[in-house]
Parts: sequence; C-alpha cells; structure tokens
Amino acid sequence: MIRIGILGYGNLGKGVECAIRHNPDTKLVAVFTRRDPASLKIRTEGANIYSADTLEQHKDEIDVLILCGGSATDLPKQTPDAVKYYNVVDSFDTHARVPEHFENVDKAGKESGHIGIISVGWDPGMFSLARLYSNVILTDGADYTFWGRGVSQGHSDAIRRIEGVKDARQYTVPVPEAVEAVRAGKNPELTTRQKHTRECYVVAEEGADLARIENEIKTMPNYFADYDTTVYFISEEELKANHNGLPHGGSVIRTGRTGWDNENSHTIEFSLKLDSNPEFTTQVLVAFARAAYRLNQKGESGARTVFDIPPVLLAAADPAELRAHLL
Amino acid sequence: MIRIGILGYGNLGKGVECAIRHNPDTKLVAVFTRRDPASLKIRTEGANIYSADTLEQHKDEIDVLILCGGSATDLPKQTPDAVKYYNVVDSFDTHARVPEHFENVDKAGKESGHIGIISVGWDPGMFSLARLYSNVILTDGADYTFWGRGVSQGHSDAIRRIEGVKDARQYTVPVPEAVEAVRAGKNPELTTRQKHTRECYVVAEEGADLARIENEIKTMPNYFADYDTTVYFISEEELKANHNGLPHGGSVIRTGRTGWDNENSHTIEFSLKLDSNPEFTTQVLVAFARAAYRLNQKGESGARTVFDIPPVLLAAADPAELRAHLL
Repeated sequence: MIRIGILGYGNLGKGVECAIRHNPDTKLVAVFTRRDPASLKIRTEGANIYSADTLEQHKDEIDVLILCGGSATDLPKQTPDAVKYYNVVDSFDTHARVPEHFENVDKAGKESGHIGIISVGWDPGMFSLARLYSNVILTDGADYTFWGRGVSQGHSDAIRRIEGVKDARQYTVPVPEAVEAVRAGKNPELTTRQKHTRECYVVAEEGADLARIENEIKTMPNYFADYDTTVYFISEEELKANHNGLPHGGSVIRTGRTGWDNENSHTIEFSLKLDSNPEFTTQVLVAFARAAYRLNQKGESGARTVFDIPPVLLAAADPAELRAHLL
Repeated sequence: MIRIGILGYGNLGKGVECAIRHNPDTKLVAVFTRRDPASLKIRTEGANIYSADTLEQHKDEIDVLILCGGSATDLPKQTPDAVKYYNVVDSFDTHARVPEHFENVDKAGKESGHIGIISVGWDPGMFSLARLYSNVILTDGADYTFWGRGVSQGHSDAIRRIEGVKDARQYTVPVPEAVEAVRAGKNPELTTRQKHTRECYVVAEEGADLARIENEIKTMPNYFADYDTTVYFISEEELKANHNGLPHGGSVIRTGRTGWDNENSHTIEFSLKLDSNPEFTTQVLVAFARAAYRLNQKGESGARTVFDIPPVLLAAADPAELRAHLL
C-alpha cells in the first residue's frame, strides 16, 4: 500500500482524493492545507488533516506527497521545499520555466535522497510523451498541438478581473479546418489565430457597460488579442446550468515522412476528451506517484519528468502480467 | 555513432536501411542475409553484406543488430540466438507467445551480457504503450483496438494459397459505427464481426472458378469466417496500379470513468495513419535500437519490452533539450 499525502485541497487536491479511490494499491493518509485544518472537510474517512506549516513533522507517515498548488507562485517554492522531506509529484505547467524548476527540484531531491517528478498531468505530461514518442519515430516531420474544446481557467480568471464582470467561463476551441488540414498531412503553417478560437460566457453585474466589457476582453493582450474571440453575455443561472464543469481535451498530431527519398507519409495522433480536467490530471498524478515511490525504493533520487519514467513503473500490475495482457 | 546491423533484407530490412538514413546518429554497418551475399544488392554505400551463417564473427563491428525475420518461425529461434553476440531489437508480434519469447531472450541476454528488446513496432509496440498508459490513467474503463484501413500481409498470403489465385491483397477495415460508438463513450460490447470487415482484391488464374475461390475465402476459419468479407476480382494491372503499397494504421481507444462516484467520463485515443507499414515499424525499431545501445552501455542486460524503456532513451537529443522543447 503506497501512502499518499496531498498538499492543497482545491480542484486538484480533491481530484487526487478521488483518484486514490480508483487505485486500490494507494491510500490517502493526510491532506495538508494552508487554511485552518479544523475548517476543512474531506471525503476520505480516516485520513488526517494537517496544517501546511507542519509538513516536515509527518515524513514517516507518507511515501509520496502530491503537490496540488498553482504553477505561478506555489510550486516553484513548494516542490523544492517538499522534496526535502518527501518523494513528490507536481503538475508544474509553466513550460518556459521547466528547466529552472527541474534544476531546483533535482538539487534538493539529491541532497535529501528523495524523488521529485515534475510537470505531470496531460500538458505537460501525456501530451509531452505523445510529442516525444512521435518525434523519435517520425524524425522528419512537424508537430501540432491543439487544445480544447475546453475551459481555460487562466482565461476565465482574466475575464473575471474586468470591472463589471461577476463571473465568466472561457472555452478554447480548435479551428476544425486547421485540425483537418494537419490530419490530412498538408503540413500547414498556422498562426495563433488560425489554430484556436476563444468563446467567452460572461455574467455581467447589473447595469454594467456590456460593450466596454466585450471590448476589454477582445483586446486583452496575450490572452485574447491574437485570437478570434466571441463573447456571450448570459445569466448567472445559465452559467451554473450549462457551464459548471471543467471539460477539456485536445490533440497532439505529428506528421512526417519516411523512405529512402521521403516518399511515404504518416500521421500519429494522440487525443483526449475529458469531462473533468482536474480529475484526469490527478489520475495521471497518482500513476506517477506510484513510479516515484518505486524509484525511491530502488535508491534513486533527484528530479524526473514523464520522459524519464519506464512505463512499467506506472502500473499496479506486475510486468509479466502487463506483457501477457497489454503488449 | 551507433553501429547497426540488419538480419534479413525483406520489407523490414529495407525499411531499417531507410530509417537509419533518417537517424543521423546511427550508421548501417552490415546486412546479414540467408541468401547468397554476392546476389544481394543494398542501397547503403560502404555497408557490408555477410552471410547469416557468419553472425558470430562480426560482433565487434556492430552495436545493435535489428532482426527482420518473421514471427512464426524465424524470431523464436533468431532472437535468443543473436542476443548471444549482439544487443538486439525484434518485432516479434505473436501476442500469445510473448511470455515464452521474453523468457528465452532474457536468459540468453543475461548470460551473454546483452540487451534484447522484443516486440517493437506499432502493434505490439506503440499500440501496447497506448494501452498501458491509458490503463494506468483510466483505471476503471474499457480498451478497444481497431486496425486499418490497411493491408494485412498474413491474410493476403492466406488468399494466395488458394488454388486458382495468382495474387491478392487483403484490407482490414474498422467498422465506422463501432469506432464512433466507442469514441462517444458508449462502451459497447463488440463481436469480432462488429469491429472489422475484410476487403479482398484477388487476381485469379485464367479460367479459375471464381465462385469457388470466393467461397473458400469467405469460409476460411480464423482468417475470414468470423468477418463480413467482400471479394473483388480484379486484373493484375489493377492490383499493381492501385494496391501496390502496404498502408496500415488504426486506433487504440480507452474510455473510463473518474470521480468519487464515477461521475465523469474520459476518452483517450492513439491513432496511426501509415503510408507504409514496414517503414513506420522500422522507424520505431531504430529508435529502440538507440535505447538498447544506451542500456547496454550502462551495463544492463536481458530482455526488455517497450514497457521497460524510459522514453528519454529513445531520443537522439539530450534530456535537457527534450525538457526545454518537448515537455
């Protein structure tokens, strides 16, 4: 039984708790929270709730700590800190800062003798694996990643920060013609605008200036200005009824050529269609927590990514069974 | 530079030769053939052609030997034999006999100190990886594998053995309604007949009894009797013009549920669309040859499958570069 701890009980933390239920060789031992532990209610009977300040006091109780903080400010500090006491897995998703984060976790992990697997989830995570496998096979080719249709929490938050906005949900939507051109092996060069559109469902405060809100969204740099964006003003009831989930998904597609004179073409596609982005992410986190535990049992330490993990270490079943049934 | 040898110069052997051209850190050193070496023409300048009987004489020239024989009779003997002298990679695809083949290669590889990676290609191979990754993530779910539209060489050969048949090409075709039902998460229970149909393009000898041939095909046990099979008689010219390639592909789809009460559903799909089955297979073989070489350099030996290989070992680029650009 692998004893799991969770740091942070938001969408991801709750997802890990559910994922543990789907992995009978794992057990939730404790949730660490920055809130008052007495105020937190969790679903797992028998699991402890501890203050995040007491992290270093419980290291003998837990085999792997799954970090459920955000990538902007939490994880860059939390992961190198927690790996001093625990094997850890995080879902750090700021692609540009991966090298720096990896170095920090690697140093702290090697010093403490723990494993830290970073950037686990679906992108980075399973999409990264799809990119790596397809690149090593189709060495001469082009990569495309499409996200959605799905809710982007970062973009939804950006809309909510606009004056006069009460609530909002933003969907990232791949442009069907672009996806089809890629699948057909046409190898198109696509601008940001040609790959995805953005759909915004916005609940405005009573009496707010809708035209101004719409304009502020559509012209927001980085988030919306480079996209064709559509804004729908809806009621709070409609938002709750129709936009309450966190679906997501997307596709990694690589097309490439083989043969003595590049005469043959091939398409590899990995795609996801997810009802719940956080629950899928946390199913991935728990599988990699199993690998972190096993690597550490073998005496290994330092930082790892999904690229470093032999797939066999992710599975509860033993290798001979996997060879007999899944190979 | 990884020095590669090829044993067997059929479709797969020729594919490996092409794949080496697409992997600049690899070099073709020699082709071993069971034919008269003097009669064999290969495309790579400077590579040697040796008799398969001299396998054990060239072990200092080659880092990894890629075995390009058939699974029925060649590989069960060749792989355990060749791993005595070389690190090897094969594409053994008789799923039911994998455990036995693994044991034989493992024993011989451990004795000689070489690595043998077996069952590399797309199924088994990349499809196996898709099944494993999707099973460890969606622990509660169902797997579906669809093959095609593509040429099955085994089924084409079976037709060619019928009296009065001059040549034939058989396409395995997934049933679109079945694929759609699976993608939609309907979790259907599908019989063999409901998953795939078989299309046969047959060139008959002059004066042959077409009705008898068609009946023999459609009622052939194991190969066709359990499928809806369509037979088209065509001319030799048409076969050459329209059915000369070896395209293939297919999809591995897993659907599953997550959440405290299984309330959310998800679909993972990995799909391939290949102009040339052997060339794609051999691109995979060469990537895993790189891993075999690296594992052996680290002092490892014995049998491995795609499940055992950390993805990072497949890539020519170094790990930091992969993290920076593909993660």
